Amino acid sequence: MYEKQKQELYEAHMMLERYNLVAYTSGNISVRIQNHVIIKPSGVPYSSLKPEDFVVVDLDGNIVEGNKKPSVDTATHLYLYKNLDWVYSVIHTHSTFATVWAILEREIPVLCTAHADVFGEKIPITEYAPVGSEAIGKAAMKVMGKSGTVLLRKHGVLIAGTSLEDALKKAIFLEEVAKASYYAILAGNPIAMDPQEVDKLYNQYHTKYGQK
Amino acid sequence: MYEKQKQELYEAHMMLERYNLVAYTSGNISVRIQNHVIIKPSGVPYSSLKPEDFVVVDLDGNIVEGNKKPSVDTATHLYLYKNLDWVYSVIHTHSTFATVWAILEREIPVLCTAHADVFGEKIPITEYAPVGSEAIGKAAMKVMGKSGTVLLRKHGVLIAGTSLEDALKKAIFLEEVAKASYYAILAGNPIAMDPQEVDKLYNQYHTKYGQK
Amino acid sequence: MYEKQKQELYEAHMMLERYNLVAYTSGNISVRIQNHVIIKPSGVPYSSLKPEDFVVVDLDGNIVEGNKKPSVDTATHLYLYKNLDWVYSVIHTHSTFATVWAILEREIPVLCTAHADVFGEKIPITEYAPVGSEAIGKAAMKVMGKSGTVLLRKHGVLIAGTSLEDALKKAIFLEEVAKASYYAILAGNPIAMDPQEVDKLYNQYHTKYGQK
Amino acid sequence: MYEKQKQELYEAHMMLERYNLVAYTSGNISVRIQNHVIIKPSGVPYSSLKPEDFVVVDLDGNIVEGNKKPSVDTATHLYLYKNLDWVYSVIHTHSTFATVWAILEREIPVLCTAHADVFGEKIPITEYAPVGSEAIGKAAMKVMGKSGTVLLRKHGVLIAGTSLEDALKKAIFLEEVAKASYYAILAGNPIAMDPQEVDKLYNQYHTKYGQK
Repeated sequence: MYEKQKQELYEAHMMLERYNLVAYTSGNISVRIQNHVIIKPSGVPYSSLKPEDFVVVDLDGNIVEGNKKPSVDTATHLYLYKNLDWVYSVIHTHSTFATVWAILEREIPVLCTAHADVFGEKIPITEYAPVGSEAIGKAAMKVMGKSGTVLLRKHGVLIAGTSLEDALKKAIFLEEVAKASYYAILAGNPIAMDPQEVDKLYNQYHTKYGQK
Repeated sequence: MYEKQKQELYEAHMMLERYNLVAYTSGNISVRIQNHVIIKPSGVPYSSLKPEDFVVVDLDGNIVEGNKKPSVDTATHLYLYKNLDWVYSVIHTHSTFATVWAILEREIPVLCTAHADVFGEKIPITEYAPVGSEAIGKAAMKVMGKSGTVLLRKHGVLIAGTSLEDALKKAIFLEEVAKASYYAILAGNPIAMDPQEVDKLYNQYHTKYGQK
Repeated sequence: MYEKQKQELYEAHMMLERYNLVAYTSGNISVRIQNHVIIKPSGVPYSSLKPEDFVVVDLDGNIVEGNKKPSVDTATHLYLYKNLDWVYSVIHTHSTFATVWAILEREIPVLCTAHADVFGEKIPITEYAPVGSEAIGKAAMKVMGKSGTVLLRKHGVLIAGTSLEDALKKAIFLEEVAKASYYAILAGNPIAMDPQEVDKLYNQYHTKYGQK
Repeated sequence: MYEKQKQELYEAHMMLERYNLVAYTSGNISVRIQNHVIIKPSGVPYSSLKPEDFVVVDLDGNIVEGNKKPSVDTATHLYLYKNLDWVYSVIHTHSTFATVWAILEREIPVLCTAHADVFGEKIPITEYAPVGSEAIGKAAMKVMGKSGTVLLRKHGVLIAGTSLEDALKKAIFLEEVAKASYYAILAGNPIAMDPQEVDKLYNQYHTKYGQK
């Protein structure tokens, strides 16, 4: 079932590792196919993860296919799919510098053009919510803007994407932006970009960049 | 003797390298099998280490099998095995950010959920103790809590695990947590998590996370 | 058309990845061959980029060969080629520490001999200019010195080279220099090198270093 | 001539890359065999370096074998060989955090046991000396202690070893120590280790550690 999609999901998890966004077992990605969601199994190290390990659940979290327990973050992913019909992929990580902002309980301001291009807005931060129920999904939706990207207070990152590729790209660029912005605020008082310029860059990037 | 366990121990050492927790020759892992302990040979670079290089000693440090000298930290490992019957694997590293906290002579407070999940408590720091005798093991036991993980003052990290996998996971996540927490305290005054919430997350993680 | 040059250009992009100067899709390199310019296609991830994906345009930006859209930064590259006849390769990145200086809106002073050797001057910073037109090229030329290397304010890096190898070398060393210099100004008030000594090192490096 | 030694020297250069102590073309290692010295050719990128590229010179710098120009740092290496009869290998790098200390014009104090074990003393820093003559070698000898390891002011690192392995190990551990010590002084005022304890650790490490 969904063999091709499981392979793509596996490769996307390997990209999380390649960009050092996850460590050992942490982080997870899901994709939605109609009323089904494919997600990483709970606590399986990246070094032993295989495409056939991924678990298929329905939107209520019932296992449709798979021998493994799904991620403990499954309820969080499902909450986004059920409440946002444009979402087809969700990523959760504790990538280092995004997590530093989450520990500092600070939004990430728009300090550079890459941030404006990809996200088009500051990265908001949720109220604190414990793992394992719909609480994180609810907290994320309260602050989520057009970027579909939020910091989870004292925790990490949650990203909603229109596709697996869209979510993966945002996961990678969020850490790039979080890192450069962290080092900048540590050494000075950088000025946030003008919101109108941010809008302009975002719209241009989302209409003219890439091959489509 | 213990061919399978030596292979697993070799692979765990390679994981220390993959996660940049060790450099060239530093760091070591041991596992206990009844009254025997298998441990890294002293000073052998990771790039030339082989499964058959590992040394088998008894709990008094006598060599049972092996052509090489065991790690100079063998006495430290044995002290933990002899005094804590739940310990089946020990890891010692100088991973960068954990060592920074050890140089600063500061415990690592619980600033994020990954810390609470895996360790369930602040990471304590030992008094200073010189290498090569039981002194480090004794100093570690004085401050060791349920996480089995301690900072060695002005030195590095010592981790006791219920299994090789448990110890390895803690070695990897300790550096993740030490790094994000370091960057956070450098840029602000982050607030430690509520101890009751830490307990809740720790208990949930240790009962519901993973495949068992 | 230009099969050999496309292969070299592909390998140079892989070097950008190897040195972590780019992420996922960001950054691009072009080379000029008489009135033609070969450049990276827009938004293609490094993990799926192939030599045959590169696009050949003329100096006015008309596509001469290629099935893909060229980089959105093509106008910037072409502006440099049209106005500086010594330029045969252009590189654009958002490499982390160079971008930190760009966010801080600060030039990089000459703090170490590697900076003096390769660049021979402080790295200047442009006024802010939006992507996608000749604005960035114009802003770059206003401040560009003999190093052909500038920081793009709140954006990243633009490098003009006499050859692909020259541009690549400057892209790699700029990040090295930006990183060490950042850490130094964060921890103290390092003194810039004497301009006469900088000149001497630069001239020596550009006449005696290497195999030619 | 010296085929085996050239292969070992090649592999040691690859280790410098693996530990990110060098970038693209920077850094070099030499070994001495009686009155001959084998050294890296000038400006050859690590990605294209081959064992047969290494150049054999005599102690006066005359080329004995090789089609390439030797490193511009050859005079520095030779000065150490001619004046210190215990030296059989020399390494020069601009590894990031060691260079940060060199830019800050500060010695590295002994803040952790790994520093005491391997070096047994603070890492001294030379007066400023320009590249390409014996000036760097002379400046290094003025401050060099038993570790054979010095910071070159505003430049980088110079290491003298009793063997290739000894020099390589010091190059790797110097960056480890420079990095952890940098982060520690950035976040606090760590206390240097007691000199008697440093001596004790150094002597113990140099008599009991490893396989000999």
